[in-house]
Amino acid sequence: MTNTATNPSFDLAHLAHVEMFTDRFEESLDFFTRVYGLKLSGQDETSAYLRAWDDYEYATLKLTRSDTTGVGHIAYRAASPEALARRVAAIEASGYKVHGWNDGDDSHGPAFRFEDPFGHVFEIYWETRWFEAQTDAERAALKNTGSAFTGAAPRRLDHLNLLSGDVTEFRRFMETCLGSRVTELIQLDNGRIGGCWFTVNNKTYDLACTEEHGGGNGRLHHVTYATDQREDILRAADIFLQNGVHIETGPHKHAIQGTFFLYVWEPAGNRVELANSGARLILAPDWEPVVWTETERRKGQAWGLKTIETFHTHGTPPVKKG
Amino acid sequence: MTNTATNPSFDLAHLAHVEMFTDRFEESLDFFTRVYGLKLSGQDETSAYLRAWDDYEYATLKLTRSDTTGVGHIAYRAASPEALARRVAAIEASGYKVHGWNDGDDSHGPAFRFEDPFGHVFEIYWETRWFEAQTDAERAALKNTGSAFTGAAPRRLDHLNLLSGDVTEFRRFMETCLGSRVTELIQLDNGRIGGCWFTVNNKTYDLACTEEHGGGNGRLHHVTYATDQREDILRAADIFLQNGVHIETGPHKHAIQGTFFLYVWEPAGNRVELANSGARLILAPDWEPVVWTETERRKGQAWGLKTIETFHTHGTPPVKKG
Amino acid sequence: MTNTATNPSFDLAHLAHVEMFTDRFEESLDFFTRVYGLKLSGQDETSAYLRAWDDYEYATLKLTRSDTTGVGHIAYRAASPEALARRVAAIEASGYKVHGWNDGDDSHGPAFRFEDPFGHVFEIYWETRWFEAQTDAERAALKNTGSAFTGAAPRRLDHLNLLSGDVTEFRRFMETCLGSRVTELIQLDNGRIGGCWFTVNNKTYDLACTEEHGGGNGRLHHVTYATDQREDILRAADIFLQNGVHIETGPHKHAIQGTFFLYVWEPAGNRVELANSGARLILAPDWEPVVWTETERRKGQAWGLKTIETFHTHGTPPVKKG
Amino acid sequence: MTNTATNPSFDLAHLAHVEMFTDRFEESLDFFTRVYGLKLSGQDETSAYLRAWDDYEYATLKLTRSDTTGVGHIAYRAASPEALARRVAAIEASGYKVHGWNDGDDSHGPAFRFEDPFGHVFEIYWETRWFEAQTDAERAALKNTGSAFTGAAPRRLDHLNLLSGDVTEFRRFMETCLGSRVTELIQLDNGRIGGCWFTVNNKTYDLACTEEHGGGNGRLHHVTYATDQREDILRAADIFLQNGVHIETGPHKHAIQGTFFLYVWEPAGNRVELANSGARLILAPDWEPVVWTETERRKGQAWGLKTIETFHTHGTPPVKKG
Repeated sequence: MTNTATNPSFDLAHLAHVEMFTDRFEESLDFFTRVYGLKLSGQDETSAYLRAWDDYEYATLKLTRSDTTGVGHIAYRAASPEALARRVAAIEASGYKVHGWNDGDDSHGPAFRFEDPFGHVFEIYWETRWFEAQTDAERAALKNTGSAFTGAAPRRLDHLNLLSGDVTEFRRFMETCLGSRVTELIQLDNGRIGGCWFTVNNKTYDLACTEEHGGGNGRLHHVTYATDQREDILRAADIFLQNGVHIETGPHKHAIQGTFFLYVWEPAGNRVELANSGARLILAPDWEPVVWTETERRKGQAWGLKTIETFHTHGTPPVKKG
Repeated sequence: MTNTATNPSFDLAHLAHVEMFTDRFEESLDFFTRVYGLKLSGQDETSAYLRAWDDYEYATLKLTRSDTTGVGHIAYRAASPEALARRVAAIEASGYKVHGWNDGDDSHGPAFRFEDPFGHVFEIYWETRWFEAQTDAERAALKNTGSAFTGAAPRRLDHLNLLSGDVTEFRRFMETCLGSRVTELIQLDNGRIGGCWFTVNNKTYDLACTEEHGGGNGRLHHVTYATDQREDILRAADIFLQNGVHIETGPHKHAIQGTFFLYVWEPAGNRVELANSGARLILAPDWEPVVWTETERRKGQAWGLKTIETFHTHGTPPVKKG
Repeated sequence: MTNTATNPSFDLAHLAHVEMFTDRFEESLDFFTRVYGLKLSGQDETSAYLRAWDDYEYATLKLTRSDTTGVGHIAYRAASPEALARRVAAIEASGYKVHGWNDGDDSHGPAFRFEDPFGHVFEIYWETRWFEAQTDAERAALKNTGSAFTGAAPRRLDHLNLLSGDVTEFRRFMETCLGSRVTELIQLDNGRIGGCWFTVNNKTYDLACTEEHGGGNGRLHHVTYATDQREDILRAADIFLQNGVHIETGPHKHAIQGTFFLYVWEPAGNRVELANSGARLILAPDWEPVVWTETERRKGQAWGLKTIETFHTHGTPPVKKG
Repeated sequence: MTNTATNPSFDLAHLAHVEMFTDRFEESLDFFTRVYGLKLSGQDETSAYLRAWDDYEYATLKLTRSDTTGVGHIAYRAASPEALARRVAAIEASGYKVHGWNDGDDSHGPAFRFEDPFGHVFEIYWETRWFEAQTDAERAALKNTGSAFTGAAPRRLDHLNLLSGDVTEFRRFMETCLGSRVTELIQLDNGRIGGCWFTVNNKTYDLACTEEHGGGNGRLHHVTYATDQREDILRAADIFLQNGVHIETGPHKHAIQGTFFLYVWEPAGNRVELANSGARLILAPDWEPVVWTETERRKGQAWGLKTIETFHTHGTPPVKKG
């Protein structure tokens, strides 16, 4: 099973931000700033713009008031204006649903929106707003660092995980519209792809898609920020414990991608992760997807932890019971 | 001071290997395998082919018997055969000294060699040899890992540092021939560039160049492998201490690039580093070089450590006294 | 629930060594030396004498050939010859079963043996054999360190866990014969003590006793060595994974004692742990036992991990089916 | 060179608190609470009572307004009322200067004060005030932990370092009045003891004394809190850097005692340390002092760092120039 393009297009530079819906805005904002450790860049009527201490953009998490939970949209930043144009052309030619251009928001300029067959809205853009410290307290002591280091765990946005009823079809969407390459996947005995990990750059993955088992549409599995060290995650576990946060599973090491992980639920129920990949990068231009079988998956995580049941069933928003 | 190309060409995928000369081959090989923690992929009459536990190629360090020390050549792997051809054309048009094609060696196929104005020989190639475990002891327990994890510190080749009499000219060479972009640099009061950090991908740097103060030509400052965690470096410091290895400086944190570092000298005198950059990557396509002034450099390293004198004077090979 | 003696007698200095039986001597010895990271001080016809890199005594684990598994005896070193005499008198007056004096072995001098009501044999002694490096490879680079640091995880013997049918009675034995104090315990709803943690010094515990649910007698739950850092345990998890060792549970953090733990089974089936308590010590002379209820235990470990079933059922030796 | 008592008396349970003088009370209090990570238990007219997150007593650092800096007094808690009486009798018989009993303060009951020949005031006491959380925010999630874990580095008071003109005489004082034992010392070529490390329990040291070279009397070298992991200290270095705290030296590893250290100066100039000793304890009842020669000291710290000049000259309070 090879990549359609052995080398990624590099038209898209990186996963840029995720809009998360919450029906408990104040509690969610308190969690992300006081407990999870993100920084508040600003707010407008409907949303709070958050970033990790070393994110360069004004916002990597847009937390939006809503009557439900889940993901609003997923944004990638293009590598250049030309690259953005190439991507827009490819998407318009793809036949996937197009929303067209919007004016952006407080955190970035004009963005082109489109949608996967499972209801997830994506956008790509070039013009962005870099975070600029307004006070010494916000300013990093080292000029090569985005913001003041405060000891909080998350350093930068890492990836997100979406649910879909047909991962094979979702893979085609990602390769066609984003020019992503696949680094690892789960091959089910029934021939379907159970999960697929994508990247547009040298990160081992910036987006994962796993099978929707709850009958929902356009749902989110989790959003993840990266920490510098595994120790940051062990410390965060104590902080979550101290703050009464629901720790779903971890800290432990995933077999797939070898990520050291910790999953918690923020107050509205959205799953958020802290992860550390150590020095792992995908540098090989001709990297072939690592294929995991069901038999291999049954062994559980890298160090033997059985995957917790809710990990297969809990997504946001909750599925409306008919 | 902006990048000539805001977005790297991505024609070159990554720094692939470094050939290091040693006039104490057996001691150097013992150091790199038993103490430093690299693995021996194979040997021919003149060289040992070494790799870190998660390097995907057969060799990232080619240790070669010689009557001197220093760097033999520096190799980058191209992103595709087409990208290799584009690079070769750009190099032939550049006016820089060209050595032309060679047949490669046990670790890779045909390579195109050329030279910077300071005597460092570079090569670029596409066809490579992936490491393939021959025994269960060599085989990784996790199929997404290059080799068996043995607890040794270095996970993969990270970068190298070369010396040159004119860093500004060296920068032109790197941008012209390798399509590298500059992520950070030192601006001296006298107008010269004191040091410059380059990358061809999302790594914060894969090659650094600092000023040659010893009057040598084509000299090496150091070669570096990346560890997963900072703790690996603290542990390695005890291992080096236990094995009587000369620890030059560290562990400490560089202000430039924020790298957690430890520098030692292998038995022949070549400087080698273990480094950890945490979760730091350069994802911004329009990243502008971070410029450090002499005044800022005088503050020493990030946590105040004064830079040790030999760090400015020791390079390999030693300069012949006239 | 208070300690019978608020301050420990300090007649016994520390847990000194554990004799472990194995019916797979060669595999067990290979595991403890090559994988788990202990050092071989010497061997006689029946036993191998092992120690961690910073244990000061010749042996902290005596691995003995047997037709079964489990614990042979548990040894504490007295604080002085006078303290030894005081303890022997207290034990002889206690009514517990006494084996009397033996000549010791390669690792220590005369020892006084006695037995708890559940078949575990204890011994106490004063004269010991300090480990003395015979070669430079064995000799520590720092003279305040027991042996050469090799990067292996275990630094020193930490504690062991025994099973008994009546933990309250076992507590009386420990307070009477060893002058131990209780630091934490589990109070079951049925009035019984489900588990009890003891110490003779400032360690938070050197011996734990939990309820025997398998109907066995004199059985071992596990033996534990301490690591310097939690990172050593994360690294060890990868080493165990790489070497096909059965990882039973962890790494995770215990609620009781707050210990960061990893449990594996050595080839013969004995459970061994690597643990890190950070900077935690019991310095308060009037420390009252921390009492955990069944309701609190149901929450699982500190970060929510459910206790694995085998942790309640697996002990060594296996119980003979009638 | 042997210990006068191979086994410590254990009359004193542990180093309990240090009173530190500051002539910049507000800045010092802000540093210790907001940056260094101690918690404020309470204040009276002249002093603030501080503790680390896992200290069991109400105060381990008493920060007192003054017109100067340095140490007010050093307090040890006795192991029992009887042990306190034994110590008082030994001190009264010793001939050392006695201040007699005081009523204690907000943090403990009656204390007996005495003085070493170098002007340092000591006190010992039994009745103490345990920290009791008043709010859920203060209450630890785990009942075996002193206070809410907040991610701050220091877990508990570890040791302090005093200066004296005659370390040999100071050693006699510590053995006579506190019943301490010596674990390591520096033997100068001139026959004097350059430094001496003491403990009353299983900690490797709770008090160190080094030679006064500034001509001062009763001066403080530094006060130290212990962290759980070395990573906490690396993180703290970034926090100190971010807050403009003067980092004097470290992080690095001491050869003596093998402590991983980081020294900073609080706003008033008092030196404070964060340290981690890993799993190291002194369990051997017949431990002989490790003796370091001047030649060995010249090698610098464990990993080769040269000791910074101010470490030999800076103490508090500053010496009045005649």
